[in-house]
Amino acid sequence: MQYTNRNTVVEIDKILGEKKQVLDHGFVCVVDYMGCDSDIANAARVSYGQGTKTVNQDEGLIRYLMRHHHTTPFEMCEIKLHLKMPIFIARQWMRHRTANINEISARYSIIKDEFYVPELDRMAMQSAINNQGSGEKLSDDIAQKCQNIIQENCLNAFESYDDLINKKLLARELSRTILPQNTYTEFFWKIDLHNLLHFLRLRADSHAQKEIQQFAFAILDIVKIWVPVVYQAFMDYRVKSENMSAIDLEVIKSCLNIDKVKDYIEQNKDSKKGDIKELITKLEKFIR
Amino acid sequence: MQYTNRNTVVEIDKILGEKKQVLDHGFVCVVDYMGCDSDIANAARVSYGQGTKTVNQDEGLIRYLMRHHHTTPFEMCEIKLHLKMPIFIARQWMRHRTANINEISARYSIIKDEFYVPELDRMAMQSAINNQGSGEKLSDDIAQKCQNIIQENCLNAFESYDDLINKKLLARELSRTILPQNTYTEFFWKIDLHNLLHFLRLRADSHAQKEIQQFAFAILDIVKIWVPVVYQAFMDYRVKSENMSAIDLEVIKSCLNIDKVKDYIEQNKDSKKGDIKELITKLEKFIR
Amino acid sequence: MQYTNRNTVVEIDKILGEKKQVLDHGFVCVVDYMGCDSDIANAARVSYGQGTKTVNQDEGLIRYLMRHHHTTPFEMCEIKLHLKMPIFIARQWMRHRTANINEISARYSIIKDEFYVPELDRMAMQSAINNQGSGEKLSDDIAQKCQNIIQENCLNAFESYDDLINKKLLARELSRTILPQNTYTEFFWKIDLHNLLHFLRLRADSHAQKEIQQFAFAILDIVKIWVPVVYQAFMDYRVKSENMSAIDLEVIKSCLNIDKVKDYIEQNKDSKKGDIKELITKLEKFIR
Amino acid sequence: MQYTNRNTVVEIDKILGEKKQVLDHGFVCVVDYMGCDSDIANAARVSYGQGTKTVNQDEGLIRYLMRHHHTTPFEMCEIKLHLKMPIFIARQWMRHRTANINEISARYSIIKDEFYVPELDRMAMQSAINNQGSGEKLSDDIAQKCQNIIQENCLNAFESYDDLINKKLLARELSRTILPQNTYTEFFWKIDLHNLLHFLRLRADSHAQKEIQQFAFAILDIVKIWVPVVYQAFMDYRVKSENMSAIDLEVIKSCLNIDKVKDYIEQNKDSKKGDIKELITKLEKFIR
Repeated sequence: MQYTNRNTVVEIDKILGEKKQVLDHGFVCVVDYMGCDSDIANAARVSYGQGTKTVNQDEGLIRYLMRHHHTTPFEMCEIKLHLKMPIFIARQWMRHRTANINEISARYSIIKDEFYVPELDRMAMQSAINNQGSGEKLSDDIAQKCQNIIQENCLNAFESYDDLINKKLLARELSRTILPQNTYTEFFWKIDLHNLLHFLRLRADSHAQKEIQQFAFAILDIVKIWVPVVYQAFMDYRVKSENMSAIDLEVIKSCLNIDKVKDYIEQNKDSKKGDIKELITKLEKFIR
Repeated sequence: MQYTNRNTVVEIDKILGEKKQVLDHGFVCVVDYMGCDSDIANAARVSYGQGTKTVNQDEGLIRYLMRHHHTTPFEMCEIKLHLKMPIFIARQWMRHRTANINEISARYSIIKDEFYVPELDRMAMQSAINNQGSGEKLSDDIAQKCQNIIQENCLNAFESYDDLINKKLLARELSRTILPQNTYTEFFWKIDLHNLLHFLRLRADSHAQKEIQQFAFAILDIVKIWVPVVYQAFMDYRVKSENMSAIDLEVIKSCLNIDKVKDYIEQNKDSKKGDIKELITKLEKFIR
Repeated sequence: MQYTNRNTVVEIDKILGEKKQVLDHGFVCVVDYMGCDSDIANAARVSYGQGTKTVNQDEGLIRYLMRHHHTTPFEMCEIKLHLKMPIFIARQWMRHRTANINEISARYSIIKDEFYVPELDRMAMQSAINNQGSGEKLSDDIAQKCQNIIQENCLNAFESYDDLINKKLLARELSRTILPQNTYTEFFWKIDLHNLLHFLRLRADSHAQKEIQQFAFAILDIVKIWVPVVYQAFMDYRVKSENMSAIDLEVIKSCLNIDKVKDYIEQNKDSKKGDIKELITKLEKFIR
Repeated sequence: MQYTNRNTVVEIDKILGEKKQVLDHGFVCVVDYMGCDSDIANAARVSYGQGTKTVNQDEGLIRYLMRHHHTTPFEMCEIKLHLKMPIFIARQWMRHRTANINEISARYSIIKDEFYVPELDRMAMQSAINNQGSGEKLSDDIAQKCQNIIQENCLNAFESYDDLINKKLLARELSRTILPQNTYTEFFWKIDLHNLLHFLRLRADSHAQKEIQQFAFAILDIVKIWVPVVYQAFMDYRVKSENMSAIDLEVIKSCLNIDKVKDYIEQNKDSKKGDIKELITKLEKFIR
């Protein structure tokens, strides 16, 4: 415990260094962070300079920024996580290029025999409708057989690895090549809040592989206690939003009860709330 | 004219090197390009590997990628433009960090006396509702006075610049500091198609400053002839789309004629078209 | 003052929020920071995993990383600065694309009449040898005249700006276009340590414009108290280093007293220090 | 074959689509390219604007840019490669974040049973001096045993994979998790020339893993025929250069025959060549 003049978020400070388990051997752990909700608002206020010191509540401002895709103020917060996950997940993870990474090196270190084995009720068939996803669950019997195959295969691979490294003395950089892709790896991952939210939107989504979703959900919980106002705006304006195409809007227009739309506009036309004003603008396009 | 084995887009090849005027002294000019519509589809197909050689029409695939924010295949096309614009616009422009830039240096070169003077009917008051935009037009009389002030000020600045450089022999890097921000600058700008579309969505938007919109529109015209299928998907699923928040969706739901929604779903439930299937999924959320 | 579990650097914590003046109206101010020397070493150690808990002193490790261009651990520290500088400097600054920025908007705010006027002994002729730099100093007399021209020009521009904004009611986004490029702007700038050092190497260099050097030097002072071990390694292996080309090495080889080289190698061949071992490798290429 | 107005490099155009084998099943293949040597020089010349149309030979200019780390003009060329390599190499590869990538998806596709088995004379012990490298070669006998272990292990893994996919019907995204890290993957990789050279400097280096070096060498051959002038400057000023630290320079100074240094300077002081002038500046520091 030390003193600091930096802005501090008590709730996130409390969990620094705590490893939250994800999957059978993985974890998510906050190592460090910089900034808080009000730092985002303050960064946005730089744009207004002097003479615009009107009362801008942080919350209203943050929600405005999120709604309008003013993304730079969200880049002003940073978080550093220690993550442990299977390699096949880490490979998807690292396709996001806007983060800083230090990963354990299998050229330098001997890799521990930890690998991911899906639980029985995770075992599912290839999806019939989603070419890249899981579909119907396998029967208990088949699921068990799959689990056994995975388990045995990986045990064998680690046994051979041990043999290559310790008896045959083969260099680590070559021995590791036979290890399976569900082997666990570890890395530090540092990213700004804007890019983190972008990552979470894609990876907490139902189309992402279940295993990466688990990690994304664990990080979402962290975001919620770190920057609660941002979290709520993100849920309202991103996660629970829908993008409606030109074609979608035409169909919705044809299904609207125009009188109800007009009533809503009439009743809310004097609202001072930004999101209501913007909604009215969207609705007006329907009744033109 | 040379032979090449590269994919070529005849229509864009024809306009290489042509300067299309924007504002009083600016221009947009295509210097080089790489890739075409089908290259995007082919990059996406890499993901499918062998065994998935089903007939995927390029157009359907590109529209699917755009709808689902599968952005990486769009990064596989690249364009290089030569641009000339006032410095205050170039400053907004270069805040987009994912492009490659070579700009004329005012430390190295003597700057030509070219500066942007808005036309009379561009002269407008500060917007009453948009803190960063223009509002009502100024009267002819006042507009003319504004134009005169701008014109005179800049002529004076360039006269002093000439004096500093040529008579006082002050170094160019110091002399240029007095030049106004409407002075024209030039640069090469190379960017991939995904990031270009992101840029265009923000800068062809009505909230952007009118002057940068002019440049964005000129580039949109180029995109249209370079990658026509991408252009159409971008218009349908980005430019003409609306993001509806959790709150917006609630209000729309309350205004819907549910019977019409059900009719639409019933009539289109066997559609093979991806966008219709996805629209039905969105509509089903309303009637639950 | 608050408690935190984060790593804290007392010396940098003390100066948070202090504006250090640079040029006539500019400043550099540390707003926030994340990480310290030992965090860099710890990030590097992630790569070694278990079984490599040998005693690696932080300093030796950091110097090794710097020497070998292992740059990712330096990305694990982050700093956020509040900067105020003339626009012509800010334009060079923002060409570095790996930082996060929130800048005051002249569309939103009325700009204060603050502009940079070089001091008399900064007034210099165009360099005869460096096409983009300043050379010989101007005589006192001419320097004074240059200063007057700059001063008057900018005062006039701000007067016209005031006229356009306050009397003619022209929108801010148009009025600002006549302001000179030495007008001061402000922004928040957040960057990781690796990219900061890269920036400093280029901008604290003697070829950079004097004015940007002043800012770079002020930031170097901050780096020195924030991460002193990194600072020293940076000075030894970057700032005070020379890159010797294949051609340079040939010439140096021809000028070496080979016996002295052999003596040095002989006397130091058992050194345990990494930099000496590496130097010997370089020297051995000369005597082959 | 088509006509184009774009700059074309005949030699690289000829090899478009040709797969050059690397390792047992991998390859490097040029898919597309943009730009050539002279485009780099032209991008640099944008900085000089009008009035500086002196005869700047492309070669001299390119070598100057390389020497002085003026990196942006090299970003103006782009190349797109189709690559096939083992996953453990692809993981190192993709840590370079400045490229565009489309990779085959093992969630979408069934993976072919192709995996990397090192040749006998590649089998080596862990290095005694380099914690992350290979050292002394293994005896023929042991090498053969290692190869057998690798071969058998991977065959077993692919057999189990086939079983999971085709008999147990387990989803592809789960079945693939047991495949070894030497399984081949394929991807499109698009990168600008500056970032490509940075990549090559690190990965064609003797400290990189042998397998990634093989790919780097294959790409160096491509660079040589694509942009021969850049290639030569890169070899002279990067690959064959040495960075000499403050400490190194002190030792070299103490070993120099100062008279020879003075002679060299005297004989070359009127040289018009940029690299000689710069070398003299470096040498003068030794004799001060």
